[in-house]
Amino acid sequence: MLLLRRCLSLTGAAPSNCHRHLLMPAVCAARLWSSSSSGGRGDGGDDQRTYQNSHGSSWIHGLAGLLAGTGAVLAYGLHQHKPQRADSSRRQPTEQTSPLPVFSQVEVTKHRSLEDGVWVTYKGGVYDITEFVNKHPGGDKIMLAAGGAIEPFWAMYAVHNQEHVLEILSEYKVGELRAEDQKKQDAVKSSDPYSTDPERHPVLHINNLKPFNAEPPPELLSDSYITPSAIFFKRNHLPVPQVDPATYRLHVEGLPAGVLTLSLEDLKTKFPKHTITATLQCAGNRRSEMNKVKQVKGLNWGIAAISNATWSGAKLRDVLLAAGYSPDVAQWARHVQFDGMDKDVTGSSYGASIPLNKAVSEDGDVLLAYEMNGEDIPADHGFPVRVVVPGTVGARNVKWLGRIIVSSEESSSHWQQNDYKGFSPGTDWDTVDFKSAPSIQELPIQSAITTPAEGAVIDRSEEEVTVEGYAWSGGGREVVRVDVSLDGGKTWRVAQLRTSDRGQEPQPSPPPGRAWAWKLWEVTVPIPPETQELEIICKAVDDSYNTQPDTVAPIWNLRGVLSNAWHRVKVKITEDEDEE
Amino acid sequence: MLLLRRCLSLTGAAPSNCHRHLLMPAVCAARLWSSSSSGGRGDGGDDQRTYQNSHGSSWIHGLAGLLAGTGAVLAYGLHQHKPQRADSSRRQPTEQTSPLPVFSQVEVTKHRSLEDGVWVTYKGGVYDITEFVNKHPGGDKIMLAAGGAIEPFWAMYAVHNQEHVLEILSEYKVGELRAEDQKKQDAVKSSDPYSTDPERHPVLHINNLKPFNAEPPPELLSDSYITPSAIFFKRNHLPVPQVDPATYRLHVEGLPAGVLTLSLEDLKTKFPKHTITATLQCAGNRRSEMNKVKQVKGLNWGIAAISNATWSGAKLRDVLLAAGYSPDVAQWARHVQFDGMDKDVTGSSYGASIPLNKAVSEDGDVLLAYEMNGEDIPADHGFPVRVVVPGTVGARNVKWLGRIIVSSEESSSHWQQNDYKGFSPGTDWDTVDFKSAPSIQELPIQSAITTPAEGAVIDRSEEEVTVEGYAWSGGGREVVRVDVSLDGGKTWRVAQLRTSDRGQEPQPSPPPGRAWAWKLWEVTVPIPPETQELEIICKAVDDSYNTQPDTVAPIWNLRGVLSNAWHRVKVKITEDEDEE
Repeated sequence: MLLLRRCLSLTGAAPSNCHRHLLMPAVCAARLWSSSSSGGRGDGGDDQRTYQNSHGSSWIHGLAGLLAGTGAVLAYGLHQHKPQRADSSRRQPTEQTSPLPVFSQVEVTKHRSLEDGVWVTYKGGVYDITEFVNKHPGGDKIMLAAGGAIEPFWAMYAVHNQEHVLEILSEYKVGELRAEDQKKQDAVKSSDPYSTDPERHPVLHINNLKPFNAEPPPELLSDSYITPSAIFFKRNHLPVPQVDPATYRLHVEGLPAGVLTLSLEDLKTKFPKHTITATLQCAGNRRSEMNKVKQVKGLNWGIAAISNATWSGAKLRDVLLAAGYSPDVAQWARHVQFDGMDKDVTGSSYGASIPLNKAVSEDGDVLLAYEMNGEDIPADHGFPVRVVVPGTVGARNVKWLGRIIVSSEESSSHWQQNDYKGFSPGTDWDTVDFKSAPSIQELPIQSAITTPAEGAVIDRSEEEVTVEGYAWSGGGREVVRVDVSLDGGKTWRVAQLRTSDRGQEPQPSPPPGRAWAWKLWEVTVPIPPETQELEIICKAVDDSYNTQPDTVAPIWNLRGVLSNAWHRVKVKITEDEDEE
Repeated sequence: MLLLRRCLSLTGAAPSNCHRHLLMPAVCAARLWSSSSSGGRGDGGDDQRTYQNSHGSSWIHGLAGLLAGTGAVLAYGLHQHKPQRADSSRRQPTEQTSPLPVFSQVEVTKHRSLEDGVWVTYKGGVYDITEFVNKHPGGDKIMLAAGGAIEPFWAMYAVHNQEHVLEILSEYKVGELRAEDQKKQDAVKSSDPYSTDPERHPVLHINNLKPFNAEPPPELLSDSYITPSAIFFKRNHLPVPQVDPATYRLHVEGLPAGVLTLSLEDLKTKFPKHTITATLQCAGNRRSEMNKVKQVKGLNWGIAAISNATWSGAKLRDVLLAAGYSPDVAQWARHVQFDGMDKDVTGSSYGASIPLNKAVSEDGDVLLAYEMNGEDIPADHGFPVRVVVPGTVGARNVKWLGRIIVSSEESSSHWQQNDYKGFSPGTDWDTVDFKSAPSIQELPIQSAITTPAEGAVIDRSEEEVTVEGYAWSGGGREVVRVDVSLDGGKTWRVAQLRTSDRGQEPQPSPPPGRAWAWKLWEVTVPIPPETQELEIICKAVDDSYNTQPDTVAPIWNLRGVLSNAWHRVKVKITEDEDEE
């Protein structure tokens, strides 16, 4: 409860603190640091990926572009095979004491292709990484750094800030940068693109710092029906852009009437304000359970990459109608794309799309939200405007929304095309074809136990155990039942569901297909006699009577998404020794 | 293939044969036989239920009204406890040779209440069933027979036509009916309400004859993307009504403009004709697998209570608009109820309802269908008009549609309120509360293996095995993948999906949320060496990435509905002895 109070107090204070001073438009900010740090050449970016050893080009192909910005597990240290170099004269021993040739920046800049060699500089050293390009887990984005300094790219994708990575780089050192050029580089301070990220609540469990990805302690989740914004799980793909609400503009494109440009004030005053309560869940929620079956690529989320908030804003439908949408448009358009204002080193923004029918449906309740839990949306959650696509995977709820495009095609972004898709457990990085699977939109039925925690110890004198958790399903499907077992699935009890905080009136039942918010649940069960360990399981059912699969392995997939098997927690029962 | 040719030839001939001569309106037919057979008293009906022994009144309460017309497993023979009778003078030994008093019909008719005693006659015998009333699995509907002949009720609910039932009845014999009255009863021939049911294809596996419930051989299902009407699974709750298309009228009620009455011609000419391909599935499909875990109540369906057809008709949305529907109606209305023209002995028709938003949605595609597979809908499938609610459990696709009612309430029918709902495996007939669960509407993801069959023997010399099946999900969610395992779930392959017959062009992809038709699938796999038995498993995934649960027991429910665990088939591999 102490933790919760801390969260709530921070919730009240944080949002206004976060935005008021972040007035530089995100695009400018991104351009500033990236152009200033690499001498004005074409900027490029590496991805936030899992670095591991390559076994053949198909692996490289499969992984190329895979984990861009998704916050990979930092398993960078598997580089084993030293590249075989034909031209040994281009390689030098890596010891600091070895005499190495000195190159000018002009000379370095000549090496920007596989034909001419690919050179980069890092802290005054010159590195020929030609042979590494095909081994780079982040694919050919590494070429964007060719001929220049690598620091700005590593600043963007913090996965590189590991000793292993420096070890790999050191193998490719071919010289020193001329002192004069090095001074020029030093003069252009390689800024940290995350330096303006907002302050975060210390209770959060951080899965990745840059970009920021964190989840609250599970037991806090089920303490509040509405998750305080400060502890609402945070999943950023890039640095948080700094957006001036006064100059903010949203562009709506692709409709016959041309581009509609709206200010924040327009959104707030020209369209009715709608409020919904909606749960957002990361596709990778509970990925850690898949990692236990077999390693997957992605942040090692626990069970708390899911939270519930109230959201207020204009309906996307209303905005599209104002921009000229009519049913005729549905004859050719199929998707609505969203571009964020968070940009990578290359200037590409985070992007995603949803099906047109979800966007324009009266019952779809898609919001261009400017409030979260009754206040301005905090910086981490998309200030000043984010899309809230209730019932749909978090990845489509684009934050810092800059552009909406009605289109015949899905978003061409990496995250829509080559990430956030599900595959068979038999599909690996050698065989995966991202085109063969649909982008994740609606999520399947989900539930988890927030308390007791795994490994908890309960004294038998307590006589009973209370199990609590959350349950939610995508697509507006209402959770209608949660079954709980204390004996590993042999027998089941039905949990009590609630749609509000304890002691509060339950929220009225949503119309069919519009149950966007989770249900919290609890059940109190006598501790079975003579049991020393309980295997507690929960499984939920939605109003389409979809159920969770029993086990993780058969839904395992190489990206570790859609992890919704029964949640299992083992607790120990101890005897009260005083009574013996 | 021979079987299939027989089906197809019958399909072509059957529909016209079935209707042309069945011109008596169903209501008249039902009234005629029921009133003529019970001397003009209040008619009543018993249900088609599972008869088993009662253990306490809560069981009776739980079962009361449960299986009405759902075609129970015929487990009638568990009656063990002879009732304890306070007034032994009212009981007589049941031996045929015992002298029993003779009663007149007038005397029998005086016994129509628990206070006065409940008497019935059967083939000239008089039975005092007062003590049995509370034990009747069909609940108090038995009271509708009080004071009269029981034959017409047993004719309606063929579950009674078993020796066990006669044994139970014999215990309650108290006398003989006066010969003169018996003659009168004989003169009123107790007609079989099913005598006018249509002819059926002999290939069907009959789960219950009256009412008719049957499914095709599984291997035929996956031979045709569009299931021929003759072998489309048949699930009737009551006798097939005989409807004259010339005098057929559909009544649309509950809208501000008053009642709209439409002829068949009106439906065909006043509204655009829409055609969809949609799969219908009985809630009890694959119930037999639940029965293996623990006995459930219901017809013992195999895996073929599912079929796919094209349906043409008027959109329900268009008809409701013509009847005065406007968005204002949605302020108070929530459901659209359907009444069939198939009636039980009491004159009650089969009924069901769906949510209003499904009914009026442009994307809902709910049809008032008058064609199935390009011809008039066959008698067994609802001639002349049935509702087709794509993506929704078969039970809501009301056949022989007579009335549509827009309402704030769900249908009050037994089938909507006290049947076709899912419960926890821990819920039994003592604890079930039908109000606690939502009526089944959209169905969960489903798939099954149609070939090879359980127990099939494959010669190793064939080197590979081809596995085929179907996959479908409710709510318009498209099946995106089917995984197949040959080793009991350890490893998985992805099956090929198809949306047409082999060699035909695939159907174009449906818009999101409107995938109403199943997918057929197949995969050919080398027979693993040194394996003597294969445990073949299939599991499907829909575009909300819902998956099937691994095992049956955790989704077991007392009615045996929603049976969608992985489908498992064991086949034997034999060695080719010639080669040894």
